[in-house]
Amino acid sequence: MTELTRRGMLSGTAAATVATTLAPFAETTTQAAAPPAGKQAPGFYRYKVGTYEITVCTDGSRTFPLPDNFVLNAKKEEVNKALAEAFMEPDKMTIPYNPIVVNTGSKLIVIDTGVGEANFERSKGVVGQFHNNMKLAGIDRNAVDTVIITHFHGDHIFGLLGTDNKLAFPNAEVLVPAPEWKFFMDDAEMAKNTSERMKEVFGGVRRVFDALGRKVTQYEAGKEIAPGITSVATYGHTPGHMSHIVASGSSKVYVQADVTNNPLLFARHPGWHAFFDQIPDMAEATRRKVYDMLVAEKMPVQGFHYPFPSLAHVEKTSTGYRETMVPWTPTI
Amino acid sequence: MTELTRRGMLSGTAAATVATTLAPFAETTTQAAAPPAGKQAPGFYRYKVGTYEITVCTDGSRTFPLPDNFVLNAKKEEVNKALAEAFMEPDKMTIPYNPIVVNTGSKLIVIDTGVGEANFERSKGVVGQFHNNMKLAGIDRNAVDTVIITHFHGDHIFGLLGTDNKLAFPNAEVLVPAPEWKFFMDDAEMAKNTSERMKEVFGGVRRVFDALGRKVTQYEAGKEIAPGITSVATYGHTPGHMSHIVASGSSKVYVQADVTNNPLLFARHPGWHAFFDQIPDMAEATRRKVYDMLVAEKMPVQGFHYPFPSLAHVEKTSTGYRETMVPWTPTI
Repeated sequence: MTELTRRGMLSGTAAATVATTLAPFAETTTQAAAPPAGKQAPGFYRYKVGTYEITVCTDGSRTFPLPDNFVLNAKKEEVNKALAEAFMEPDKMTIPYNPIVVNTGSKLIVIDTGVGEANFERSKGVVGQFHNNMKLAGIDRNAVDTVIITHFHGDHIFGLLGTDNKLAFPNAEVLVPAPEWKFFMDDAEMAKNTSERMKEVFGGVRRVFDALGRKVTQYEAGKEIAPGITSVATYGHTPGHMSHIVASGSSKVYVQADVTNNPLLFARHPGWHAFFDQIPDMAEATRRKVYDMLVAEKMPVQGFHYPFPSLAHVEKTSTGYRETMVPWTPTI
Repeated sequence: MTELTRRGMLSGTAAATVATTLAPFAETTTQAAAPPAGKQAPGFYRYKVGTYEITVCTDGSRTFPLPDNFVLNAKKEEVNKALAEAFMEPDKMTIPYNPIVVNTGSKLIVIDTGVGEANFERSKGVVGQFHNNMKLAGIDRNAVDTVIITHFHGDHIFGLLGTDNKLAFPNAEVLVPAPEWKFFMDDAEMAKNTSERMKEVFGGVRRVFDALGRKVTQYEAGKEIAPGITSVATYGHTPGHMSHIVASGSSKVYVQADVTNNPLLFARHPGWHAFFDQIPDMAEATRRKVYDMLVAEKMPVQGFHYPFPSLAHVEKTSTGYRETMVPWTPTI
């Protein structure tokens, strides 16, 4: 090894071959400059759960100045410290949106729908990409049998409508959590919840479901609501927030929706209450319970607000939980 | 909050709306079953370093039964424990291959070339994907000005040749590390290195560079070998192994080549000597030095054997280093 070591350190300038040594690069340009592409790859990713084929189709991700009250129970400097520890820029927050399509072999099922195509142009393509990425993935929206909604925030339901305010999935049955429907369609609740934030949420809910003629099918927790897809009560983020376990053969994935927002902040700091958590204490209790289960079961999690393609394993740390992204598989 | 909490727990079956409750799903199928796509998304990803555009084009990844001596200085059960801790299957190893293309605005530069198109068919598309993914990314191989080779293992150099054994990048200057050239083109070294493994490596090197008529340009460490791209001596994995810093404006990325193999094993366990490390002690010293620098500088690393798209930050842990994958950006 010693000899190799010494050799390895030599610079090899005397190699007796036809190889030339490097001329100043400016003189060696042989091609016209290629223009930068400026365009990202199609935003979808496929993996199998048993015989099921899951296609993650990103809706995009939004970056915005960090609001002072983004974490309700932590100071901005603590949040900035956590951002730095996750190698994210200070004073900014990035939230990715990643709906999925499940092909069970007999049914084509969408889980959550993104912020909607109407926001694609408004945001200059930053968000609202879901339907286009489905198309790029070769999935026909007219062939979708079922849309499962996890909860009634705009980034999950606005994509039920197309740019023309018509149904984005015209042939699909739309499944919604029964307790979510009960809360948000209750006019007395709407009258009571008068904060700007809640008025906005209620307004979005009514706009979307009124456009659907309120034609939805309510589902309860703990039921197999589609082949191999079981609903799980994960209340707190909203009053009727549901997650789903997709199972085929001996394989499972936990589709968590908003049990955490971006995990680099909120899985690593499960005690933090995100601005978007409507019932923060309940959301935290749910988060800890779900993540303890994921750790114990070694079950992968598909996280709506995880970085695309949003599939990870989690482990327990001294202060919370930490993700290992499931390695990208170049073939499926 | 108490009322919301109670409401959230209710099941909402009595909601007075037109919404229906869920019928058994078998009766609600409305569409013909959509066939599974069975096809992964195009394997490229773009990001910016200053004004430079980097396109990571995966060559695929190979999974194989874990050899007993895969880690030269650790027992198989220790390796299996580390695989489990990284949520990888036991008794298997997965190694991704991820070359990159750098568009500086004036030059189009490839760094490493994958196992070659000839292996695409042989592997049924599992590896040898690089040239096709370049094409899917809209990059014309004929427009490539420069190919930078980091070291002379087959997964880095075989892609210099096409299926017809002709030049895969016919108009490009091929830059190779001078100490690597000196070692591997030395007939006396070839005669001395008679292990099966080293005979295979020497054979591959001669086959490729003889097909190129040995027309390469040697480069030294510590030089700007292309606009904004500086070579760094990272000897050990092979005698002349080089890494590269790509810099534009105030942004930098460290293109590490094989300073580690799959980081889930070898960044997390930097003291482990991979079967492929030719001079293991030197490779380990290099690995620790580079990773301590990456941690201190908070510099992102582009790792050839990292999971696609292979861009990560690293931090120091009690036992080694740990990656945080840079979040996928759905727009660039």
